[in-house]
This record gives sequence, C-alpha cells and structure tokens, in this order.
Amino acid sequence: MSKVGIIGIGHGVFGRRSDATVQELAFEVFRTAMEDAGIERKDLDASVIGSVPEYHKQRSLPGVIQEYLGLVPKPAWLTEVACASGSAAIRTAWMAIKAGVHDIVAVIGCQKMTELETPEILALMGRVGEVQWESIFGTTFPGYYAMFAHRHMHEFGTTHEQLLHVAIKNHFYGAKNKYAFFQKEITMEKAKDSDTVASPLQIFDCCVNADGAACVILANEKKAKEICKKPVIWLEGMGCATSSMSVLKRPNLFGIPSAQKAAADAYEMAGVKPTDIKVAEVHDCFTIAEIMAYEDLGFCKKGEGGKFIEDRQTYIGGKIPVNVDGGLKAKGHPIGTTGVSMTVEISKQLREEAGERQVPDADIGLTHNVGGIGQYTFVQILRRD
Amino acid sequence: MSKVGIIGIGHGVFGRRSDATVQELAFEVFRTAMEDAGIERKDLDASVIGSVPEYHKQRSLPGVIQEYLGLVPKPAWLTEVACASGSAAIRTAWMAIKAGVHDIVAVIGCQKMTELETPEILALMGRVGEVQWESIFGTTFPGYYAMFAHRHMHEFGTTHEQLLHVAIKNHFYGAKNKYAFFQKEITMEKAKDSDTVASPLQIFDCCVNADGAACVILANEKKAKEICKKPVIWLEGMGCATSSMSVLKRPNLFGIPSAQKAAADAYEMAGVKPTDIKVAEVHDCFTIAEIMAYEDLGFCKKGEGGKFIEDRQTYIGGKIPVNVDGGLKAKGHPIGTTGVSMTVEISKQLREEAGERQVPDADIGLTHNVGGIGQYTFVQILRRD
Repeated sequence: MSKVGIIGIGHGVFGRRSDATVQELAFEVFRTAMEDAGIERKDLDASVIGSVPEYHKQRSLPGVIQEYLGLVPKPAWLTEVACASGSAAIRTAWMAIKAGVHDIVAVIGCQKMTELETPEILALMGRVGEVQWESIFGTTFPGYYAMFAHRHMHEFGTTHEQLLHVAIKNHFYGAKNKYAFFQKEITMEKAKDSDTVASPLQIFDCCVNADGAACVILANEKKAKEICKKPVIWLEGMGCATSSMSVLKRPNLFGIPSAQKAAADAYEMAGVKPTDIKVAEVHDCFTIAEIMAYEDLGFCKKGEGGKFIEDRQTYIGGKIPVNVDGGLKAKGHPIGTTGVSMTVEISKQLREEAGERQVPDADIGLTHNVGGIGQYTFVQILRRD
Repeated sequence: MSKVGIIGIGHGVFGRRSDATVQELAFEVFRTAMEDAGIERKDLDASVIGSVPEYHKQRSLPGVIQEYLGLVPKPAWLTEVACASGSAAIRTAWMAIKAGVHDIVAVIGCQKMTELETPEILALMGRVGEVQWESIFGTTFPGYYAMFAHRHMHEFGTTHEQLLHVAIKNHFYGAKNKYAFFQKEITMEKAKDSDTVASPLQIFDCCVNADGAACVILANEKKAKEICKKPVIWLEGMGCATSSMSVLKRPNLFGIPSAQKAAADAYEMAGVKPTDIKVAEVHDCFTIAEIMAYEDLGFCKKGEGGKFIEDRQTYIGGKIPVNVDGGLKAKGHPIGTTGVSMTVEISKQLREEAGERQVPDADIGLTHNVGGIGQYTFVQILRRD
C-alpha cells in the first residue's frame, strides 16, 4: 500500500481575525502551502475541509472554499468531529490517497469562532456533552475538565501549581511563535492571581477560542518523491478511537480512554515506542488535558504528569518537548483548525524549520488531537524522510 | 484494488419523528442493517455519519451515536456537504475500505429537521448560497430553483405542467412506500391549485423537510463474499464534483455542472453508459431539479426533460424508472440522510426486494445526490453481483 507524505504546509495568524472571512483565512494558508509544495492547482485532485460548521454564518463551507480557491470542479468534502475535525480531515485525505482514489489532496483546517453573536457562541459551547443525560444538568467544557482535574488531584496528589506550570511553558513558547494569539510570557504569580472559571481551573488553565486556518498538502509516495524539494514528512502511524460521550460511562475521570487506544494503535502502525518520539503536539484545551496527555501517550506513568511538567521534562532539553509552539493555550484554539495546525508544527520541527523553537535531532514527531471531552482522539506519528 | 460492496441495508420511516432522538433514529436503521447483513458489532471496524450538524441540539453527533450504538472505542467521523452529506459519508467509507484501513464500515445517514424552533430552522435555511455576494440579497432554496426553472422554461419551452408531472409521479410511488412521509397520490388539479412558493414553483414543486435515518454496511470484496447471503451490491462508479457556489459564476442556469462532471466520472469508472442504467434515484428537491437531472445524467438530451416526464419515460415501464420510492418529494428530505436513503433504495431494487415498486430486470442502478444548490454532486453506479 502506498505511503502518504506531507509535501506542503501553511499556517495563518490565530486570533480575532475580523480582517478576513473564513474563505479568506483558507486562501491565506492554501497559498502558502501550495508555494511551499511548489505545485499548481492543476496538480491537486481534491480538498478536504476540517471545520465545525455551526460557528459560521456561511453554510456549506467546502463549496464556498472550493470556489474561492479556484478549485472547482474538483471534489471537496468536510469532516467534523468537534475539536478533532482537522485531524479527521487529514485522516480521510490519507485514506483517499492510500485507496488510490486521489494522488494529491489539500487539507484545510479553517474556523472562525468570533463571527456569531456572543449569546449564539455561548449557546453552542453550552451544548457540550450528551444532551439527554448530561448537558441538561448544566455541564460545560470547563466544568468537565474541572472534574477531570479534581479527580486527578484526588487520585495522584497532583497540585494546581503543577497544572499552571503547563500554562507557563506554553506561554513561554507562544511568545516565540509569530502565529500565536498570545505572544507573551506569564508568571506563576500572574496565573494564580486570575479569576476562577470552574474550580480548580482559573483563566490561565483554559485555552482561548480563536479564528484561524492551517493547511497541509498530502501526496502519495511516488508524487511526493517527484515533487518535494524539502524532506517529505511521512504519515506513519494513524490512530483514531472513540470514548463514550457520557463521562458517567467511563472507567475513570483521570484519563481519556480514546487517547490511550488511538496512541496504542498509532505506535503499533508506525512500529515505534513513546521513547522514540522527539517532539509532540498535544491537545491542551485545559492545563489538565496536557497532563493527562503525557500519561495517556506513555511519555510518563499515569499519575506522574504533574511532576513531569514541574521537572520541566516537556521543555526543549527535557525528555520530550511538548507544545513548543504555544499549544492551544497560547496559540489559540480555532476548533476545526487545531489538528491541522498541530501537523504543520510537527512538520516544521521535522524539517528543522522551527527557528528558535527548534527541537534538536527531531526525526519522529507526534500529534494528539482530542475531540470535545474526549469522545474522539486522533494520534498521528510522523517521520522525516 | 479491492472492490467494495453493500452487505446490509436499513431504512427508517421519514416524517415528523418526535418519537425519537437522532441517536434513536440511527439505532433503528443500524439494527435493521446489521440484521440484514447478518453480522455482529465485533465484525464492524468503524462508522461514518452523514449529517448536517447545525440542525441538531446535540453537538458532536458521531460521539453520541457511537456510544448509543455500543460501538465505542471504534473510530467514527462525520462528513458534511449539505444535502449530499449521506453520499459523502458513503464515499469516505468506500475510500477507507479500498485503502485497506478498514474491512467493514457502517454508514449512517441521520437527521432531525424539526428539533430546533421554527425561526432557527428558517434562519439556517435562509443562509443558503454564498453569504458575501448572494444570500445577502435574499436568496433562498426555492428562489434559486425558481431561477433554474424560469431559465429552463425560457430556453427550452418547458412548461410548469411538465414540472408538476414529476410531483405526480413521485407521489404515485410514495403512496406505495411505507417509509415515505406522504403516502398519498396527488392529481394535476390539486397540484396546480396549491400556493406559490417562488414563482413558478408551487407547494407541490417542493420537497419537504423531514426527520429520518438510513444505513448501509460496506465491506471489502473478501468479507462481502464470505458474509453476504443475499446478492452483494457493488459500488462500481463513484463520481464526485463541485460547481461554483455562486450561481453568478456558472455557465448557465438550466443544468448543474457538478452533476454533469460527477456523472461522466462515475460512468467512466463503472464502464457503463446512461442507457445501461435500469433504475435511478435522483435529487428532486424541487421538480425542476429532477428534470435537470434527467438531462445532466444523459437519460435524455438537454432541454428534453420536460417532455421526457410528460411521456412517462421515468415511470416503471418507461425508458428509465426514476425515484420509484417517492423521491425527496414524497418520501421527504432529511438532508444528511438522503444520499444513504437513495443507496438503500437502489440496493433493494437490485436485490429485487422492492415489492410492488420493483423495476423488472434491474441489475445496474444509479444514485444522484446534489448538495445545496448544486455546489456538489455525488453520483454512484451500483451493480448486482
């Protein structure tokens, strides 16, 4: 079966992008990725859009984007699995190429989160969780992750300071990333001094909604080798799994079952172990989520994630640098885009194009993209040619 | 490359389904399809959901459905391309199987259209078309298709009576389909007597929003032959194309460019001609859409669609029976489900399980599923083993 590689990448500025429509955001990153790949529109076979449709005024996004990008009449479709929609888009493009249906596919994660009126956005965010049995009782995103945090603290003695160390690290690297929403370092004092959102989570434990887009161009082995002037980044492990949406049906609240399964499947497909990973992008929608990710991915033992960040093991120079682009926390979280953004960052790292954020000797990288409250996780393992 | 076949089908009752949540609608058709295939949950590798998310109170549908169907931790994802979402779901499952990533995949089209309050639904429907340049001027679904109808009438002398003959045919067959929303025949007199929606389109020129679900189980060649007790229905031609979303950029308004391209690609892949098709399901969201489909698919020449239905060529016994389950017009149009419903109907026809609606000697069938105002079309050609 043909291997699938990344031959072009593009990333836009995340933030409040009132300067651009969603198709303009898409065009920005598409142009960069096409120039990076050194190909023209005629070389492309199809586009896959990763996005969560309900946040946009524009219905039927792939149609509008395909037209705006000048790609009609080529096929286009959208994938949606909440905050993991971008990784699902990469996964279906990977399948299309492996199947021999298409040779070269553009994957565009694009999302505006600030377009609708605030009450509409809050209503959408408020419908998180299973509607019949959970959200009816008032569950929210921060509320779920606060439960995960409390359970982790209770079970393993994790401290809130350890959680905030995640935020400090991610803001430290966000300050060096010109595409990040927040390009400012923070101190423990400032983080601790912020308002509580859902105890124990404070403002600086939470990522921020953002507008933004990112693009990767995928190709089959033959085309990738023909076209690519830079090292091809191969998709070697592709894990995808689900957990029950209702947290009341999960075995525990201190880990994400779908992440553990998707990671195991991805490691097996790629034939690598957690210790082989040199750089990772994980889904830090809340600080506790990054700590659970360390454990679910096998970077440390279950329960030791708090100590792991306190010991700076996920900084560059530590055991496994994580989110050295700022993560969702500092970079911002345009929900449909995030998975594609992660893959762009790992591709940059593996190509040694990450500048002052470069992880030395990075030849194998990983992305970990969680949908919603963990009902989906997509794990990718990428390797430099 | 492995062939992909349909080994199980399930179809629910379309209509105002206030008796069931969206996951309950999904379960209904999943159970039927699994029993039809004669397999168990452990045999399934993944699920793909075809749905338009914004019509539901429940966010993140694949997670909720995967849990409700007892399929956690298997992968699940959703595809969205407006009214063609169901066919896009079948297409990505077909790719997953051809790629060798999965062996057996459940595709579930499910949609509730009556869950939100009427103003919310109208607001969603009102955002049809390109937001920047068209819908801002008040374009609506019936408005677009009224323009297509006027142009067709102007260009080819098509009459409004010819349009209404489509409705009469589809209600005639809908009356024989126990899953249809409207199981009642109509007369020309009744059709002509109805209110105007967007001139020349009257009430009986328009399909109806509905709640409903449908399911197909797909398998690779080896598994399909092992498992299937009934004739396997092979997906032999899979066309997918886009048109510009803005109708102002289309070459004309009397046909759907994406439909012509998707049909050409599907015929080529399957190695068949329009005259080889024995039964078809086409996207009759409005009566004019069915007439354009006859022409875009090559069942008759461009401009002759009106005469084609007037001459009853798309009734059983005519040149090519079309929508003999009632079509979107009488069966109802749960937007994310419709593509899957079409594939279920053609599978039934090819298996000779369509009862009094059976088309004789049906060995090759076609589905034609249009997204929105024609920005996407998916065409499938199916063949009985």
